[in-house]
Amino acid sequence: MKAFGFFILNVAAMASIAANGQTESSPAVQGDPAAAQEIRGWIDHWRKAVSAKDVDRVMELYTEDVVAYDVVPPLQYVGKAAYRADWQQFFYQYDSDLHVETRELHVGANGEFGYATGLQMISGTLKHGQKSGVWVRFTSLYRKVDGKWLDFHDHVSVPVEIQTGKAMLDLKP
Amino acid sequence: MKAFGFFILNVAAMASIAANGQTESSPAVQGDPAAAQEIRGWIDHWRKAVSAKDVDRVMELYTEDVVAYDVVPPLQYVGKAAYRADWQQFFYQYDSDLHVETRELHVGANGEFGYATGLQMISGTLKHGQKSGVWVRFTSLYRKVDGKWLDFHDHVSVPVEIQTGKAMLDLKP
Repeated sequence: MKAFGFFILNVAAMASIAANGQTESSPAVQGDPAAAQEIRGWIDHWRKAVSAKDVDRVMELYTEDVVAYDVVPPLQYVGKAAYRADWQQFFYQYDSDLHVETRELHVGANGEFGYATGLQMISGTLKHGQKSGVWVRFTSLYRKVDGKWLDFHDHVSVPVEIQTGKAMLDLKP
Repeated sequence: MKAFGFFILNVAAMASIAANGQTESSPAVQGDPAAAQEIRGWIDHWRKAVSAKDVDRVMELYTEDVVAYDVVPPLQYVGKAAYRADWQQFFYQYDSDLHVETRELHVGANGEFGYATGLQMISGTLKHGQKSGVWVRFTSLYRKVDGKWLDFHDHVSVPVEIQTGKAMLDLKP
């Protein structure tokens, strides 16, 4: 793991990060380890709220002007009301609570801006009793609003096979 | 369009941005209009290199440690060599040069970090003569390396219909 001009946290490589938040190989790191840690706190709040299918708690974590590119159509959800309806539709499909497993997490932040990227397995039991579990890729962007980190952009997807037009729902990292 | 604690450019709303790079509704904007303009320059270089199917010029725009979530599998491409092979495979499918149209572009940056999100129509003529054109969603992250903006994360995707497992390749913004 390297960091170049920005503080990057990688779950699998925490041990390699020195006390000043820089790896040995990082030139002129100007990122903020405390801010990156706050973003990790955001992700933990998000995971708990999603696991509990609590749409109010989930939506507290987003800006009013959030633009989201979700796994499902349309191409984009513009604004909190549209994204909230998408979350509600998603939660409605499940009978059980959800389980979220995150891997290959990369988090970076400075005083005003943050990001997170990674892979997530979202699993649970659907309304008709079928078990569901899909690995997705996610990229999220954060900014501080009144001293609190909020997500202003989500991009969540699965790869597709262009030739057959098939969604790849059973890939594993 | 609003900007909250970060400078956001929206192609369709440039006229609403005051000389200090802030919209009327933006509190405490700390982003850097010049940096955001540099990111827009990056996007223009990228578009020209992709249009010409010039893999060397495309790859000059990425960091060595780039992690990409592409439209096609696998879940992720880790590192420049893997992502270069993905680009080569993509370019190989086309007989013609490519045309890239970008809409709903959002760009933000400060001194050390930038992002871009938007919709892109990638079109051209495939090897067997068929015309192809697909709207994708993209999210990219940038950092400055030796004074030059490089892309360290791409996320490009199309939505999928979960129930049928079908990729949505004909959506329009």
